[in-house]
Amino acid sequence: MGVPETFTRETRHDPRMQGFRDRTQVEDVLALISRRIERLDVEPVALRNTAGRVLGEEIRAGAPVPAFDRAAMDGYALQGHETKDATVRTPALFHCIGEARPGHLCNLTVGPGETIQITTGSALPRGADTVVRVESTQREGPMVRVLEATAVGRHVGRIGEDIEAETVVLSAGRVLRPQDLGVLSAVGAGTVAVVRQSRVAVISTGDELITAGHLPSAYQIADMNSGMLEALIVRDGGVPRIVGPLPDDRDRIRAEIAEAARWADVVLISGGTSTGPEDHIPGIVAELGELVIHGVALRPAGPAGLGFIGRTAVVLLPGNPVSCLCAYDFFAGPIVRLQGGRPRNWPYRPMSLPLSRPLVSIAGRVDYARVKVEQGQVEPLATSGASILSSTTRADGFVVVPSELDGYPANALVTVWLYDLFPPSG
Amino acid sequence: MGVPETFTRETRHDPRMQGFRDRTQVEDVLALISRRIERLDVEPVALRNTAGRVLGEEIRAGAPVPAFDRAAMDGYALQGHETKDATVRTPALFHCIGEARPGHLCNLTVGPGETIQITTGSALPRGADTVVRVESTQREGPMVRVLEATAVGRHVGRIGEDIEAETVVLSAGRVLRPQDLGVLSAVGAGTVAVVRQSRVAVISTGDELITAGHLPSAYQIADMNSGMLEALIVRDGGVPRIVGPLPDDRDRIRAEIAEAARWADVVLISGGTSTGPEDHIPGIVAELGELVIHGVALRPAGPAGLGFIGRTAVVLLPGNPVSCLCAYDFFAGPIVRLQGGRPRNWPYRPMSLPLSRPLVSIAGRVDYARVKVEQGQVEPLATSGASILSSTTRADGFVVVPSELDGYPANALVTVWLYDLFPPSG
Repeated sequence: MGVPETFTRETRHDPRMQGFRDRTQVEDVLALISRRIERLDVEPVALRNTAGRVLGEEIRAGAPVPAFDRAAMDGYALQGHETKDATVRTPALFHCIGEARPGHLCNLTVGPGETIQITTGSALPRGADTVVRVESTQREGPMVRVLEATAVGRHVGRIGEDIEAETVVLSAGRVLRPQDLGVLSAVGAGTVAVVRQSRVAVISTGDELITAGHLPSAYQIADMNSGMLEALIVRDGGVPRIVGPLPDDRDRIRAEIAEAARWADVVLISGGTSTGPEDHIPGIVAELGELVIHGVALRPAGPAGLGFIGRTAVVLLPGNPVSCLCAYDFFAGPIVRLQGGRPRNWPYRPMSLPLSRPLVSIAGRVDYARVKVEQGQVEPLATSGASILSSTTRADGFVVVPSELDGYPANALVTVWLYDLFPPSG
Repeated sequence: MGVPETFTRETRHDPRMQGFRDRTQVEDVLALISRRIERLDVEPVALRNTAGRVLGEEIRAGAPVPAFDRAAMDGYALQGHETKDATVRTPALFHCIGEARPGHLCNLTVGPGETIQITTGSALPRGADTVVRVESTQREGPMVRVLEATAVGRHVGRIGEDIEAETVVLSAGRVLRPQDLGVLSAVGAGTVAVVRQSRVAVISTGDELITAGHLPSAYQIADMNSGMLEALIVRDGGVPRIVGPLPDDRDRIRAEIAEAARWADVVLISGGTSTGPEDHIPGIVAELGELVIHGVALRPAGPAGLGFIGRTAVVLLPGNPVSCLCAYDFFAGPIVRLQGGRPRNWPYRPMSLPLSRPLVSIAGRVDYARVKVEQGQVEPLATSGASILSSTTRADGFVVVPSELDGYPANALVTVWLYDLFPPSG
């Protein structure tokens, strides 16, 4: 599971790829990401806010859980060996000297022939080693008849039965489950050291963009990328901050990128990343830091790129929304997850299924093909334009065609990466 | 996928189950939940906060996206038929009368022999029907040489190519994907009607409980359930509010339950749900509303129950943390998800694998058995006590043994429900 490792190792020239002299293979971009991206530091967070966060340190139990022997049933605490001949016809007789309740100190000591009424969860009183279930007794005033032999130690939860002192209960790198919060409560953790979440700046650019939520007038189009990227970043455990949309004003864009690089761990810039005269982003990134990769052999996200300004990673995402989604999932998502201490792999559910008809691709670049799953077969979607975002809402998922193939024949078994983690209801 | 449907249809009597006269079969509880729990109403939410929420209404596009024909490449807009004989050696000549940029109104009209320089995303000027790529042209002052015949309509993104007007873009009940937010932006949705999230009160009870984050002193134990339940509720799309832990004070507990039933859609109560003298909860729920189910044939969550106070569902969860987790996942989780318009099924990843050794259970009740997955085999965990929460952190998941079986033999293929959605990193 994860990004397939079948990406081609050769670089081919495709005459249809104009504008970029050379395109970097997807696998080389991923190798660069693995080499250059580091996990962020840890930070203390209040326990109740840590579900789904990544543990930054090993957790050891300082004390045993529970910290005392306790009753596992409602009944009577006594010395178990005294019941060894008890039956319904020959009950063992005990004198009840008091009561033990959870959360209350019981200072009595159980001697021979004595018992203490006890409720589940109560500390076992001194002198007692066994709990006889209430169902195996008869009470008459201060006297208790035990009707069943009960082995020594029965119905007693031992000190440390859940967690022994000094045990490692959770290891660093763990993505905390709901029940982990219970265990952390039990060992008295008030704050927990978790990996800091990646701070991600989102800058969409383009004179034609208007902020989402407004209906575009003629010649304008809504900024589809900022809201989509915000949701993707949250999914991957990052903390997004939306900076755009910005007009195609080089000075303004440069200033905003420089400012974002000061506080962000990753800066995502969508639009203006290609090679045209209005494509300011590659030049700006090269001026402010280093532009390591520009142009990737990935369809439909060719005009993607990767650079660094100081320690901040900068990902160039094409402005076309499908390209933007594709470039995010291939390059930005892994950076956000790796910084946050999470698995680099895609947070999609893979499923192996046959193709209903051929899936045509172009060798030399990786293809991100949207598909539907129908009656157990994979149906490539006809619409494949980079600007047709609705293709990713109609699709159930996508198939990745590796660079060395020009597609798959009908009936080929392919891996579909499903957009929804769980099948929709109804 | 989902809660298995193999739960037994018969009710058996197990003499070891004392305290409860009759235990309801798990499937009957689930049937009651399906019958009684309704989806909540919809509420308007700002688009940017809707990722992962459930759409409450069908969304139609009011206008086409894009709302105009636009250039799909950088190049020159012109009348395509005029290029039909163009080659490198016999270029077609055009007079460039201006420029079209994205987001800017271009009021020029392209006549015969004329062209307009155009950038990707710009509206196609009047009179033009085609874009010739810049790579297929040569520019010399105001003159443009087209070196390649370009079919009419080429490199033009048509009005409505992404979304046609009046199309249903998303259906009610959809769990919104990141890219859905992009599409909703495109159709100008500022607020979206989504299903209201279930408001869930969490009340843990017990004199022995102290709030998580403090190290318990003698005879006390940390409240493990509140934090665990809070995380489970968030996972299932609900909004938790922690009320406890409360001491075993009947009047106080009764008042808090009555108060919570006024604002909550679900009240979860952990601890005090069994049949002992300190188990106040079943009586309180019966007084305030109806206690429909008390005692379930489910190990280790027998002392679970289900009732209603007015329209508010009340789920009785045993105080032992493993039992609490188990009862949440079987009964409370489905209620929270159904109210929120989500699939009832477990949000765990199922995997079919063989058992490494026999899994022993007791017929007549469903068994929730924690397991590890090692080298492709399922290993039942030895520790199965209801109080051993660390068993659910050591486990990779659980296997459900249906009521009619007394377990599975070694090598039997069983479904493991994995606690982690994705394999841990490293």
